Amino acid sequence: MSVEQRLSELGLTLPTPAAPAANYVPYVISGNLLVIAGQLPLGPEGIAVHGKVGDTVTVEQATEAARLCALNLIAQMKAALGGDLERVVRVVRLGGFVNCVDTFVDQPKVVNGASDLMVAVFGEKGKHARTAVGTNSLPFNVPVEIDAMVEIA
Amino acid sequence: MSVEQRLSELGLTLPTPAAPAANYVPYVISGNLLVIAGQLPLGPEGIAVHGKVGDTVTVEQATEAARLCALNLIAQMKAALGGDLERVVRVVRLGGFVNCVDTFVDQPKVVNGASDLMVAVFGEKGKHARTAVGTNSLPFNVPVEIDAMVEIA
Amino acid sequence: MSVEQRLSELGLTLPTPAAPAANYVPYVISGNLLVIAGQLPLGPEGIAVHGKVGDTVTVEQATEAARLCALNLIAQMKAALGGDLERVVRVVRLGGFVNCVDTFVDQPKVVNGASDLMVAVFGEKGKHARTAVGTNSLPFNVPVEIDAMVEIA
Repeated sequence: MSVEQRLSELGLTLPTPAAPAANYVPYVISGNLLVIAGQLPLGPEGIAVHGKVGDTVTVEQATEAARLCALNLIAQMKAALGGDLERVVRVVRLGGFVNCVDTFVDQPKVVNGASDLMVAVFGEKGKHARTAVGTNSLPFNVPVEIDAMVEIA
Repeated sequence: MSVEQRLSELGLTLPTPAAPAANYVPYVISGNLLVIAGQLPLGPEGIAVHGKVGDTVTVEQATEAARLCALNLIAQMKAALGGDLERVVRVVRLGGFVNCVDTFVDQPKVVNGASDLMVAVFGEKGKHARTAVGTNSLPFNVPVEIDAMVEIA
Repeated sequence: MSVEQRLSELGLTLPTPAAPAANYVPYVISGNLLVIAGQLPLGPEGIAVHGKVGDTVTVEQATEAARLCALNLIAQMKAALGGDLERVVRVVRLGGFVNCVDTFVDQPKVVNGASDLMVAVFGEKGKHARTAVGTNSLPFNVPVEIDAMVEIA
């Protein structure tokens, strides 16, 4: 099954990839490596969730936000690869930052929202190395930000 | 125009690249990839700015500190490349950490200080993917730390 | 002297590499690059240290925890390389996150626990670029988390 078929079977529609917010770009290709800028939980109406996990945001809401970050990562992959997601050889790494209170320790659960989506969409090729950490604040007060390194053909 | 000419036109003098502070090195070259250690806002007199954004440091001061981190990154590139900045093929990625209070949400504005300098100095080759996040503390109480991945020839 | 001989001379036993905790994997190889997921200070009995530096954890304890993270990174390298640590060409980068109070500024000292071990074990090949930052919280309340990029043959 192609990646596009899997997206469709999962009922997923890729968002419009976010435009560069400043003097940087959403992705850079260097050799076989696609490096994608940190993605926020952007939905059709803009940022879908605001706030800190452990304060106004629950683990479930943050996990859903992480999934949305991953969907935006996939949208950037598609834009980077001329529309052809079959060129993804391997999701190499995700870097997940969770905006949380000082006592929160379940960052892995939150970032699983992104990891699970990658494997659902790309299968074995979606299995990645990962770093999940907490942070006291993120841009625009989003609960999660996730970046990626992807090997491409 | 060469990168050195652009630096000169911008009135910029590269700092002396910071020496390794411990059992690590300021950069490693692996194939075509130059990986640079996190740089602090070091000026001629040492660290130029101390403190947290949203507390004792303003967005403007932190943006200037980010610019100084970027200048140190360029100094490390020059050292890594035997003095020849024309060997920079592409600034692939910047990773920006902003030391801030828990309610600060303008990390992208701060890290623009570095992104804008990269594009001013390297033009299109300076356009990079980027991750900008907050943190509750940084080494030596600097307001910003930025690392980089650069494709080289 | 081989890397295994150096480990033995240092009196070090590699831990069992931690299994994937979720839909991600401990490492991915892409070309000559081995990317390792963030490692926690896992000892034979599980997580060896809990807490925040500057609160319940001292710099010395956190430095020892960073050393343990590095030992786990080396265990992952060995697993990734079919048991042959001689295939390590260069430790390219360590990314260190220190779980600490807002006023703590000695993250470099803590991460030196990992950097020093890399150089003790791999010699010149162990000298890496590094980014050391603070964070307000880490998974399972560990004081340190460290990930790595390694060039391999």
